[in-house]
Parts: sequence; structure tokens; C-alpha cells
Amino acid sequence: VEIPADDRGFTLGDGLFETLLAVDGQLVNADAHVARLHRGCEALGLPKPAPIDCWAAAEDALEAAGSPARAAVRITLTAGSGGRGLDRPETPARLLVATATAARPPGRPLRLLTSPIRRNDHSPTSRLKTLSYLDSVLARREAQLRGSEEALMLNTRGELASAAAANLFWIEGKQLFTPALDCGVLDGTIRAALIERDGVHEVRAAPEVLAKADALYLTNSLMGVTWVQSLDGRAFQPHPRGRDLQSLVADLVPAA
Amino acid sequence: VEIPADDRGFTLGDGLFETLLAVDGQLVNADAHVARLHRGCEALGLPKPAPIDCWAAAEDALEAAGSPARAAVRITLTAGSGGRGLDRPETPARLLVATATAARPPGRPLRLLTSPIRRNDHSPTSRLKTLSYLDSVLARREAQLRGSEEALMLNTRGELASAAAANLFWIEGKQLFTPALDCGVLDGTIRAALIERDGVHEVRAAPEVLAKADALYLTNSLMGVTWVQSLDGRAFQPHPRGRDLQSLVADLVPAA
Repeated sequence: VEIPADDRGFTLGDGLFETLLAVDGQLVNADAHVARLHRGCEALGLPKPAPIDCWAAAEDALEAAGSPARAAVRITLTAGSGGRGLDRPETPARLLVATATAARPPGRPLRLLTSPIRRNDHSPTSRLKTLSYLDSVLARREAQLRGSEEALMLNTRGELASAAAANLFWIEGKQLFTPALDCGVLDGTIRAALIERDGVHEVRAAPEVLAKADALYLTNSLMGVTWVQSLDGRAFQPHPRGRDLQSLVADLVPAA
Repeated sequence: VEIPADDRGFTLGDGLFETLLAVDGQLVNADAHVARLHRGCEALGLPKPAPIDCWAAAEDALEAAGSPARAAVRITLTAGSGGRGLDRPETPARLLVATATAARPPGRPLRLLTSPIRRNDHSPTSRLKTLSYLDSVLARREAQLRGSEEALMLNTRGELASAAAANLFWIEGKQLFTPALDCGVLDGTIRAALIERDGVHEVRAAPEVLAKADALYLTNSLMGVTWVQSLDGRAFQPHPRGRDLQSLVADLVPAA
């Protein structure tokens, strides 16, 4: 698949994407992903693609990838070609493409390092899965150069936000916490399912609260609920409740 | 020109660009643009393209555009294809492309509206011309929906930063001011030339300081020094010093 060099997704990050798990050719939790894509279209002022167009693109991508039993499907929607500088053309001609790659089953725990790059809670894009993803790319890259797998990002107020590509949860005592959306947090599909299925406290919190945490978890649609092994060098242990959380969303992230 | 759908510039905004003026086929201030591109490569951890490769791409683009007498040339550099999710491949294969379009000579004054979207001074990307440009696109779009041409963006501390696609200057009495780079401001080529050639105060300032300003100006490599007609509905008049500023960079932005 090729993209015109004047596509606004390429030139300006003017677009959105979704990453879905597909098991045996079936997209998992597909309605939640399209609903989020549509919310993103509203925020960006882009026309909403029909779900059937998303499914067709995803099916083609899975076939082109050789129909892996477990796949990561990425659906990308852009404001299309044209316009002048920052300005979109009068009637944007949206571009919708999908790609698929074989996905590993969720596995090892992750080491986290706090990034100096902060999520911009003063922009709606911090709550959306947009093509302007460079801050997360750079945060992840720096964490990896320093020997960890993932970055913990604060927002511009210095409050807990999320990992570069996952939502953050922590357990303290019997309670489960996650940063509120207006902390500059992606409205993650696994995050939303945990909130709906369990008693989760959505909070604004300084990073110091994690000093009292018993366990940390990261969530996204490909890895489900993953245990955090360390944060800035401080070790965490797996928690009995972690397995409960994984069971709670087992339908959304089936084991291998 | 077409781009692979897995190019990281397209999928994640993982790249940089430069917009240069070309007059009668000659790139204007080209060394300053390549120097900025190279500084961006350092910040992003990307290999620096040889200047000769940039010139060759720009020349091809000008020819493909029919060699307009006055052209906007855009050079785009990305981290190339591949990698897994956010992570670049071990040896990134960079992509370098250029496009050109006929450019109008700098003209009318602009109306400015303050945007609710803020520039993220807690990220190095706010000082770079990256492909993750969506915040500026949305700020500009909202200003235009409300009947103005350009958006004034503050940073997350609520200080003056810049327009969506231009640097901000203001005159108070006999003095010229502009926000400092660490306010989350692009290191603009015209901004840098004005600072080098005139006595400009680089400051951190709340938007309230503009209440005492005699005139506002926006600068970028295509429009040079442009007079601001109004900010949030308050009218400004052209200032005798504005013409001096335009003369000062006339070699960088020749009139039609």
C-alpha cells in the first residue's frame, strides 16, 4: 500500500489510528475501536468512516498479511490530500488504510522509566490516538536507550498520565486506581472495560502516590493487562489481584 | 511521489520538515534550513541527510512543479519504514522527499485569535518542525472557523508562545520583543535573522503584556514579516518600525 506524498497524515500528522487485536481473522472489541475512531473524528472535524469500510480494510489487510492466527490490525484515517499549508481543502478527501502484522501473545512484565517528556493535557490530542505521536515515540526511545521497555509519562502539571503506548493502573490495599482522562490520557479500550467491569478510581494524582502502591499494571488492546516489574529502578512484585484483572478482560485479549 | 504505508512519518509523525522559499529556482536561506533540520535530527536521533541530497530533492520538486518563479519548497525527512509499534528498527532507513508549489507573495495583514490549545513546552518537539503538527492544525482550524486567519498559541504555563505556523513579535515603545525558545517556540529562520540583525528582547511573558503593545508581527520563511491587524477582536495599527523590520530581512523574503 502506498500513500500520496501530499497526504495530510504524512505531512502534518492530521489523522487518527486504531490498533486492534484479531484472533483467527476475527477483530476483537471492534465496536469499541470504531466508536473511539468516531469520537476522534468529531474532535478533529473529520467525516466519520462507515464501520463497514473499516471492516473491509481490516479484512484485506489480514489477507495480505497471510492471515496470521493472532494479528495486530492497524486502521489509519487521515484528512487526505491537499489544502494549503496547515489549512485543509474545503472538502477533505479522507484516506482510510489498514495494515496487519503477526502479533505475539502478551508476555513478559515491563520495566518503566519516567520520561522528561510530558503529555500535553492542554490539547485534545492527548486523549486521542492521533498520527501526531512523536512525543510518545521519543519518550519510549529514551526509556529504551536507558535499558527499560516503556516510558511513564506525566502531564504538564506533573501528574500521572500514562505510558507511551498503554494506560496505567495501580493497586493500593484493596483499591484499583487509574489517572482520569483529563490528565491527558488516551481513552483506552481495556481501560474502559476495567472501569466498567470493576471498581476503579479515576483520579488526578502526583507520581509520589506510587510510593504506597502494591503493584502497577499497564493495559492496551494488544497486551491486555501487563504487570510492571519496576519503575525508575524500584522493583514491584506481582499481586494476587493482577490475575483477576487479566481474567476480567480475557474476552478482549484471549491468551495464545 | 508516493510513500509506503508503513513509513513512520505517516504512521507516527516520526520525522521533520522544512519549508523554504525558492525564487527563480534558487532556494532562499537554504543553509539555515538545513542547519535546523540537522538540529532536529539530533533531537530525534535520526541520521542527518547530506545537504546535497536536500538540494537535489528540492530541485527535482521544483522541476516537477513546473518551475514556478516563486515557490514554497517542502523537504520532509522521516525515520523510514519498519519497526514494531512505537519502536524504530535497529537501523532506520530514512526517507527524504521534497514537494513544491507556487507561492503567493507575502500580502495581507492577519487577524489572530488566542487558541485554547497550548504548545507543549514540556517536550522538545514544541521547538522543532516535526511531522506531529496536529495541535497547530487544530488551533489554526478553530481560529478560521471563528472568522480569523491565524491562531495565537500560549504554552502550558499560559505564557505567550507563537502562532500556529509563525513566530510572534511585538513592539512596545522603541523596543522589539519575542517569546524565548524555551517557551515552546519554533526556532524560526526569520526570527533568528531578526534577533541577529536587530535588538530583540527574548522574554517569557504573559499574554497581558500585549495590552501595552503598539504593534504585533508574525514571521515565517514564506511570508517574512507580516503585520497583525487584530488579536481577539482588538485592532492594531501598522507601526513605522514594521517596514524597517521587513527591510531588515528583505534578502530572505524578496518582494514579488
